[in-house]
Amino acid sequence: MFDKTVYIRRRRTLLDSMREKGQRGIILFVGNVDAPAQYKDNCYNFRQDSSWLYYFGLDEPRYGAVIDIDSGEEVVFADDVEIGDIIWMGPQPSVQSKAESVGVSKSAPYGALEGVVSKALSIGRPVHFLPPSRYYNTMKLASLTGLSHEAVGVVDFTAGKTEHASRELVESVIAMRLIKEECEIEELDAVGALGQEMHTVARNAVKPGVLEQHIVGLMEGVTLSKGWGVSFATILSQHGETLHNHLHDKIIEPGKLLVIDAGAESNSHYASDFTRTLPTGGKFTQKQRDVYQIVCDCNEFAFSITRPGITYREVHIETMRKMLEGLKALDLVRGSIDDMVTEGIAGLFCPHGLGHNMGLDVHDMEDLGENLVGYDPDQKRSSQLGLGSLRMARKLVPGHVITDEPGIYFIPALIDKWKAEGTGKGFVNFDKLKSYYDFGGIRLEDDVLVTPDGARRTGPNRLPIFPDDVEAAMAK
Amino acid sequence: MFDKTVYIRRRRTLLDSMREKGQRGIILFVGNVDAPAQYKDNCYNFRQDSSWLYYFGLDEPRYGAVIDIDSGEEVVFADDVEIGDIIWMGPQPSVQSKAESVGVSKSAPYGALEGVVSKALSIGRPVHFLPPSRYYNTMKLASLTGLSHEAVGVVDFTAGKTEHASRELVESVIAMRLIKEECEIEELDAVGALGQEMHTVARNAVKPGVLEQHIVGLMEGVTLSKGWGVSFATILSQHGETLHNHLHDKIIEPGKLLVIDAGAESNSHYASDFTRTLPTGGKFTQKQRDVYQIVCDCNEFAFSITRPGITYREVHIETMRKMLEGLKALDLVRGSIDDMVTEGIAGLFCPHGLGHNMGLDVHDMEDLGENLVGYDPDQKRSSQLGLGSLRMARKLVPGHVITDEPGIYFIPALIDKWKAEGTGKGFVNFDKLKSYYDFGGIRLEDDVLVTPDGARRTGPNRLPIFPDDVEAAMAK
Repeated sequence: MFDKTVYIRRRRTLLDSMREKGQRGIILFVGNVDAPAQYKDNCYNFRQDSSWLYYFGLDEPRYGAVIDIDSGEEVVFADDVEIGDIIWMGPQPSVQSKAESVGVSKSAPYGALEGVVSKALSIGRPVHFLPPSRYYNTMKLASLTGLSHEAVGVVDFTAGKTEHASRELVESVIAMRLIKEECEIEELDAVGALGQEMHTVARNAVKPGVLEQHIVGLMEGVTLSKGWGVSFATILSQHGETLHNHLHDKIIEPGKLLVIDAGAESNSHYASDFTRTLPTGGKFTQKQRDVYQIVCDCNEFAFSITRPGITYREVHIETMRKMLEGLKALDLVRGSIDDMVTEGIAGLFCPHGLGHNMGLDVHDMEDLGENLVGYDPDQKRSSQLGLGSLRMARKLVPGHVITDEPGIYFIPALIDKWKAEGTGKGFVNFDKLKSYYDFGGIRLEDDVLVTPDGARRTGPNRLPIFPDDVEAAMAK
Repeated sequence: MFDKTVYIRRRRTLLDSMREKGQRGIILFVGNVDAPAQYKDNCYNFRQDSSWLYYFGLDEPRYGAVIDIDSGEEVVFADDVEIGDIIWMGPQPSVQSKAESVGVSKSAPYGALEGVVSKALSIGRPVHFLPPSRYYNTMKLASLTGLSHEAVGVVDFTAGKTEHASRELVESVIAMRLIKEECEIEELDAVGALGQEMHTVARNAVKPGVLEQHIVGLMEGVTLSKGWGVSFATILSQHGETLHNHLHDKIIEPGKLLVIDAGAESNSHYASDFTRTLPTGGKFTQKQRDVYQIVCDCNEFAFSITRPGITYREVHIETMRKMLEGLKALDLVRGSIDDMVTEGIAGLFCPHGLGHNMGLDVHDMEDLGENLVGYDPDQKRSSQLGLGSLRMARKLVPGHVITDEPGIYFIPALIDKWKAEGTGKGFVNFDKLKSYYDFGGIRLEDDVLVTPDGARRTGPNRLPIFPDDVEAAMAK
């Protein structure tokens, strides 16, 4: 938790922003409750709502808050513990003292939230809330507002759809959380270090004969020892071409490429997110190295052009151009690079975007709507494979924290589909691609802070990325 | 997953049981979906519903099933993956083939569940379902049945309250899951071994100066390397008197008692649950050893009388008698042991029950109602502190798997409360207790299988429990 002045300032900025937009009424925040894994008393590790953490800092379940836009009054809602709870949970500070620790002077029982919201609604005052990110919050918001689940938004909320939640509130929150403050950058560097430690432990454990899950457990133990846990479900796969493979049931085989995409979440709930691709036996084959070098060049190139003023959409497109040049040199694609860029040919090899925003969430604020977070008002999302998956396209400004994660994958089902449909015809060398069907995939990812005069990578110890360095590190 | 014959047999037994109870209509099973931690694509490690796992085995999100009690027909509902999913998730077997792998011959899309349920309801056929254990399941069941959230049961379902869910179905499921099959006992022994490995790693790491969270991370890394993860949130605390302390932010200090209550969940989702209490510096003080020995004797005593025919309520009460004898020898209580047993004086020192059922859940089937799971129809739950928290009171039969976990705690807030209210007056030596206010707590827990001629502990390598053995293990 930061000093209370941080939260006071943030709430003040939010209030000013809503007033500048001509908004009236109340802002309703609903913090998370514990999420049962099996039953109500056996829950997953508690994870507070990120926007709640940003404005109120209190990292405990079953909190709510209201900010009155008109009067500026702030109230935190939660229940004090009773004697029965003290036996089980130990003595606890009062809700009032917790509220004061983040600069809120008024508190009330959790149940009182209902009366405050219904009173506001009964006299026609607008109630602004963020789209719910969990099923409980859907039920809670529906119950508080009298709206249906669909109206408040179920969790599988379509990106950018905020017609019932408050569009103005969503935009005000996004504008603030997108630009990281100094105190947040410190947290991001610290959790970068932890993520790098996870990867180092993993790299030291990779060798033929080891179960993938064994390495995953080692990595996750590192972040549980020093942080909250993983910032997302670890991807560790010898089938890197399967982008979201969360099974770890294979034995490491020699001669494969192992994609490890994993990050830490700190106790303060900031995220890191790194990907490295390792030769399972410690040495790349020439064929692996040729493709690896292209991805490595793309990662370096993207970083080199990341600076205030350029859009990340341009960085993505220029990086894909670089990738096509490399693939052309390997005779996997042919023809005019410009034409291939226009046609989105790189999407066959890299069907995801170059990167996403990071912060309190590894895909920062994805619950508020991907497009609202990642696209400027004048930007339209592409429907091309690859570019269409780009989660961050905005014009860069200092304080943006984003990932730089190009990848090349050989996905048999996708190659077959393109070939059958005639997509990429004349550009893609489908014949040569046949010998890559068992190649797998490569992704290389760093986390990047946009600075006033360019960019720097977060986390103190960049993980080895150049092929010789990777081999040297694995030989240790 | 077990062989398909296991699931076929279990569903057949369930069907027969419902028919024997004179039930008609359909049985509706709703498996779990992914639980978002921050947003819909960043979820906690998927945990399937335990009753679903028991009857259908398929360990993937967004499954449902219907068993028609009248015709015996079984259908599994889930969606096949599409090309877009294959790019991200890799090629997947069809739902039909998965259904067949657990002996169900018919499958349909997930969305078809709605029509099947509403058709049954429209012609007045009963729809039997289990109380939901997660918020999503509350919403899903409400949506399928047209009932309110409260009617299908919100997650914080009061123990034993099944007025809207099917009482007959709940009782049939409990009767089956309570008695572990051979294949389940193998799983429980295996996950016992993993839990014991967690504790061994922890014990080796305990020494003054180490952060509690560091040890927690090491333990959890072990179970993530070989299993699904922890079977519940690890308790590791130098304030053992706080029964559910999940903070791990303290440095290990010399001269303290460290309670470690933790268990593993296997990849097959069976649970283990062990508690050991370690002297942080490696040696007990005499004062610590005196209390420790009582708890150790209680653990041994409870095990020694655990056998078919006795109720676990009696085992609890007789163990509390043993505890009072020990406390009397330390002059912490005085007077007639029989009177103290009747008055529930042990509850001041051990405010929880002796144990609970175990299986696919660490508190097995707690989502189905604590009293229905843990109490025979002729048993009434006590309101006494301690005995009132006993989750398993039933007459024991071979195949029950339960925990044996006596504890002694010195809880200042509780002692003060009893003293102020006059509770335990004439029995409790409040003067002598003053010197125990900073003692902390001790709990010692094993997992026990009731066998035809007595009982045996599960897991192959019982963790050191006798004080000399604990000190010897810590000296290694």
